Amino acid sequence: MNLPVARSEFDLIRRYFVREMRAAGSVLGPGDDCALIAPSPGMQLAITTDMLVAGNHFLATADPRDLGWKALAVNLSDLAAMAARPRWALLAGSLPSADEAWLAAFSAGLFECAECFAVDLIGGDMTRGPLNLCLTAIGEVAAGQALVRHGARIGDELWVSGTPGRAALALAHLQERIELPAAALPDCLAALHRPQPRVDLGRALATVATAAIDVSDGLLADLGHILERSGVGGEVYASALPAPLEGVDAIFARDAQLTGGDDYELVFTAPPAATDRVRAIGQQIGLSLTRFGRIVAAPAGDVRVFDVDGNALTFARHGFDHFR
Amino acid sequence: MNLPVARSEFDLIRRYFVREMRAAGSVLGPGDDCALIAPSPGMQLAITTDMLVAGNHFLATADPRDLGWKALAVNLSDLAAMAARPRWALLAGSLPSADEAWLAAFSAGLFECAECFAVDLIGGDMTRGPLNLCLTAIGEVAAGQALVRHGARIGDELWVSGTPGRAALALAHLQERIELPAAALPDCLAALHRPQPRVDLGRALATVATAAIDVSDGLLADLGHILERSGVGGEVYASALPAPLEGVDAIFARDAQLTGGDDYELVFTAPPAATDRVRAIGQQIGLSLTRFGRIVAAPAGDVRVFDVDGNALTFARHGFDHFR
Repeated sequence: MNLPVARSEFDLIRRYFVREMRAAGSVLGPGDDCALIAPSPGMQLAITTDMLVAGNHFLATADPRDLGWKALAVNLSDLAAMAARPRWALLAGSLPSADEAWLAAFSAGLFECAECFAVDLIGGDMTRGPLNLCLTAIGEVAAGQALVRHGARIGDELWVSGTPGRAALALAHLQERIELPAAALPDCLAALHRPQPRVDLGRALATVATAAIDVSDGLLADLGHILERSGVGGEVYASALPAPLEGVDAIFARDAQLTGGDDYELVFTAPPAATDRVRAIGQQIGLSLTRFGRIVAAPAGDVRVFDVDGNALTFARHGFDHFR
Repeated sequence: MNLPVARSEFDLIRRYFVREMRAAGSVLGPGDDCALIAPSPGMQLAITTDMLVAGNHFLATADPRDLGWKALAVNLSDLAAMAARPRWALLAGSLPSADEAWLAAFSAGLFECAECFAVDLIGGDMTRGPLNLCLTAIGEVAAGQALVRHGARIGDELWVSGTPGRAALALAHLQERIELPAAALPDCLAALHRPQPRVDLGRALATVATAAIDVSDGLLADLGHILERSGVGGEVYASALPAPLEGVDAIFARDAQLTGGDDYELVFTAPPAATDRVRAIGQQIGLSLTRFGRIVAAPAGDVRVFDVDGNALTFARHGFDHFR
């Protein structure tokens, strides 16, 4: 009979996080002091890192398979917002114990996402401590084609992908602040637990959009980053946004849509002359793209929201901030 | 009178972690979805990530300035062990609160190390949670010149830089397991709190050494990784190693030297024909390099340690493992 034994950190990494490197340019994977990659000639690298803390970004009881997907997906979403093609990722984690069932499910979800986007996991670190995950993702983008936050210009139109707000509604449902109709639950839970990084959209927008960001903290909050860094203001027409869900209290739905985070849709700006090209991109990749406002001359970061009658709306908060 | 206000995570990052990008190739620093770098043509990138957990890798009461230095230094040490030139770093951190005195000191130490090794901090993430730091470092190395763990060959000699064991002695002193002579304390504490990544050594060894690793978990444990991955065994002559300190119990000193971690010296292998070149490198960069054993035909990972009389020594453990 084989009894389960306490594995070392090296065994755990080998068992759950080492798979064959697939991509050209993945020179050396996990198991040495560093990973080695050979970037494609002429390409710049986009790099992002995110720390996910149990009890803050996710519940310690979250399905580990979903968590594995999401931990990588939210980083690929940052690459998407820069118009970069995802290539490589590294995972550093601290775990309260070497729980192998948890690790097996988590790594399955992580590699599900990695394979979906042709990403090689090239390295990482694993240690004991409070449940905490740090993902670093690396993508490639042609020099000068990255979508930055500071490129929005007065007169540009505001666009958003998908139907923002569903992840926030799912969270409110799980926290028993609202009750979602049973028929709507799967879509909302999928938005929360299995966000789809908009990689194809980001890459298609490289030469069309003037600025982009992914919605992690909330649509208004993240739009605010574009406005601030571009030195412009914005007008948002709330009624233009696609309703996240029928049959939910309208005020609550609007709050989720405009200030709820965790959707990982892209918000971007494009000149009016590009409207047809943006629409064509949406059709080509099968993703709804909605024009919901415009860039105006106003103090940097200033955003005004209007309802269908042109009345100004105010919000107690624009999104989530970990230190406020 | 200005009262202190609770800053947002964005303000905190701007205030403490955004400095001018200095290096060619640092295209876009903190403040966007991703950082952007332009790797030098023809170079491969070495990438490493480390998670440091309070109470495990460092005490929550550790001097934050030292901690800032060390958090980056241990990652640059991984780059050194691959013969890579450090170029860029990212920092993700979770903090129990926005303690600005702590952040100011931590970032001062971090940038002290970054400037010492011409590293640009290009991005990161900051969130609330148990004190936990994740550093990712990126370096450049010419294609085919990286020092890997799996290159050791039978007959190669074993070398180590500096005087391993001092960091472990300092830790034992702080934990009141031993009392170090006052005169020796500063050097030992410096080894523990301000480790020097052996970047110049690593780069000089690129075309001389056959394999290399940095000593983070313990000399025997880390040597074991070279042996395992190279499919060879090793003989270590303990008495050849430089005494970490005079006046410390000999058994304790030997244990610190062979199984104590946190020194960040390089262990490397080189063929006997390269002995003079290795010695010349040590003299050129002003760092003592000691030959302390050799690679032998034996089961992969097998390491035997001998005292001055040729008697075999045994150790209860070879180093530190977070899950054992």
